[in-house]
Amino acid sequence: MPTAPDQPLHTDTSADAGAIVISVDAMGGDLGPAAVVAGIADSAAKNPALHFIVHGPEAQLGALIAARGIAERCTIRHAEGVVSMQDKPSQVMRSGQATSMWSTIESVRNHEATVAVSCGNTGALMAVSMIRLRKLPGVNRPAIACLWPSRNASGFNVMLDCGADIKADAPDLMQYALMGTSYARNGLGLARPRIGLLNVGTEDHKGRAELKAAHELIAAAAEAGQFDYVGFVEGGDLPSDRVDVIVTDGFTGNIALKTGEGTAKLIADFLSDSLRSTWRSKLGALLAMGALRHLKARIDPRRVNGGIFLGLNGTVVKSHGSADATGVSAAIGLASQLAQSGFQDRLAARDASVPQSGQDAPLGEIEGGNHS
Amino acid sequence: MPTAPDQPLHTDTSADAGAIVISVDAMGGDLGPAAVVAGIADSAAKNPALHFIVHGPEAQLGALIAARGIAERCTIRHAEGVVSMQDKPSQVMRSGQATSMWSTIESVRNHEATVAVSCGNTGALMAVSMIRLRKLPGVNRPAIACLWPSRNASGFNVMLDCGADIKADAPDLMQYALMGTSYARNGLGLARPRIGLLNVGTEDHKGRAELKAAHELIAAAAEAGQFDYVGFVEGGDLPSDRVDVIVTDGFTGNIALKTGEGTAKLIADFLSDSLRSTWRSKLGALLAMGALRHLKARIDPRRVNGGIFLGLNGTVVKSHGSADATGVSAAIGLASQLAQSGFQDRLAARDASVPQSGQDAPLGEIEGGNHS
Repeated sequence: MPTAPDQPLHTDTSADAGAIVISVDAMGGDLGPAAVVAGIADSAAKNPALHFIVHGPEAQLGALIAARGIAERCTIRHAEGVVSMQDKPSQVMRSGQATSMWSTIESVRNHEATVAVSCGNTGALMAVSMIRLRKLPGVNRPAIACLWPSRNASGFNVMLDCGADIKADAPDLMQYALMGTSYARNGLGLARPRIGLLNVGTEDHKGRAELKAAHELIAAAAEAGQFDYVGFVEGGDLPSDRVDVIVTDGFTGNIALKTGEGTAKLIADFLSDSLRSTWRSKLGALLAMGALRHLKARIDPRRVNGGIFLGLNGTVVKSHGSADATGVSAAIGLASQLAQSGFQDRLAARDASVPQSGQDAPLGEIEGGNHS
Repeated sequence: MPTAPDQPLHTDTSADAGAIVISVDAMGGDLGPAAVVAGIADSAAKNPALHFIVHGPEAQLGALIAARGIAERCTIRHAEGVVSMQDKPSQVMRSGQATSMWSTIESVRNHEATVAVSCGNTGALMAVSMIRLRKLPGVNRPAIACLWPSRNASGFNVMLDCGADIKADAPDLMQYALMGTSYARNGLGLARPRIGLLNVGTEDHKGRAELKAAHELIAAAAEAGQFDYVGFVEGGDLPSDRVDVIVTDGFTGNIALKTGEGTAKLIADFLSDSLRSTWRSKLGALLAMGALRHLKARIDPRRVNGGIFLGLNGTVVKSHGSADATGVSAAIGLASQLAQSGFQDRLAARDASVPQSGQDAPLGEIEGGNHS
């Protein structure tokens, strides 16, 4: 049930009234602005309601956008500077005002756009998002939520935090459970998500002290939060259909995410080697090509491209640095889905009302959408 | 270069002088003693130098062993009790003396066997191993080392700790680097292993405080320890050929291990689904069957079955609880390789001489084998 954003879009850009405006950082990705603009063109063709504010060097972007025939769908916002993958977040925070990344976040801060998308340096993007958008009231540590291929009906689980912060205390983990619930409801359409807390075993006595404390906090918040708490889950449960949202600290989440990606890549490469090894297997691969393509699509990281920054006054989608046009388009697709569902307003309403204990908030009523 | 163990084998069992004696817990695995005895029979056929002390209920084991025709290769050690997967380590430590697991460790403690193998409850096995074998001098936290399928020439990387302890301080991580070096040298035959420290980024300023401290300690120990320190590695590097040994705390290592296994299983299942989806893909799969079998073997967790407990006065191999005969045989194969290489004696000599700072130990000379 999409609801209208509570902040009116400023229509002094070339956006039509009622359009969804996405702010896109054209710079900072490994493949350069051509891949980003190609992804924008793909998204524009798929969804006529989208308008884009594209940030980067005006002359370069103007040529790329004109070549794609999408000039009417895009507003170019000139920015000379580019944040590189090597730049330290602290540097960018101090002196990154002239970069395309900063400008991209600024459009969300100014309510010109509903969601920002960038392929750039994650640490810098989080740092700029934090200081320009600021944390939602009641949120101590923002988180990055990622989608994970799974056996679920939707094909995905959500994991957070995937690396916004290197640690999380028990109240942070409880907050992640609430933010993850909102995201699964609005991003994956799950009315009552199942939440699990990542640990090294499923027994109640296992794990670190903060996990045992978080276990109690999340269990106590489940009824009011309208989610099902399945308790501790293990690394093997990440792609399972036991759980929809996996809560963990950003250190562990980042290691798990990259381990899963690395394992998938290893197996794909081994499979490719094996199928090329004999003429019989080559012929077999040719016959099975449709099936193998289907498999590739199911586990393609580009299909799940886009980590979401949660817990800020504005939604930011972080695309993989190596994203190509397909990857950028996937990230924009996720951004527009969240924009259309009024996700940010629901999240803000929910989080603002959650006391630190997390036990007494009437979350169910808030999630129902009765916010102005 | 295998060296003779410095402790004579007690030949009052039916072991031949010069035989490698492996102590095997027949109970506690998910598939029961029949699978374990089948694994022993497979190992016995492969390696005529092996003798086994098999622990569990005498009548039951006697029948299984006789049926496999390996009675001459096995000594049965009667134990009535079985440690279940649900038993808490603390309970087993207090009152597990009559269990097959306890008896299995006891044979290593008494120098009747060189290595112990069990498919049972990991926590209980570590607890019993700790109190009966005790930690090596200079080791604060023992670790579990696991093999990981990789792009390396050997086909494997080593990761530790995979879950012996839920935390590790900087000196523990440095100790893991040294123990992992010994294991890679003796278990994988790598003269000068490359060591990496698992983190959320490869830049020096990234990660938790204890990781930055460990980074300095390990770098300083590299020359004396005769390993190459490659610095921080990420989750995606686990299956890479950048590194041979990945050092991390037991919480992170356990999550990464299970995430990798879960991802591999998900992809294998998706592949199987895809290949069954049409008649063309079924025919293709038939033609490519040899190649697909080769792939399966390369990533088969049974092939890499066996976590090694490092840092104790004795070597213990933990097999997967779900191991079948192939898995048990793989674990015994690893155990016998370590027994034959004199691994435990080298490790003990090395660890005993490493001061806490890790900077001044003449590890190279020790590792060369000049210990009596």
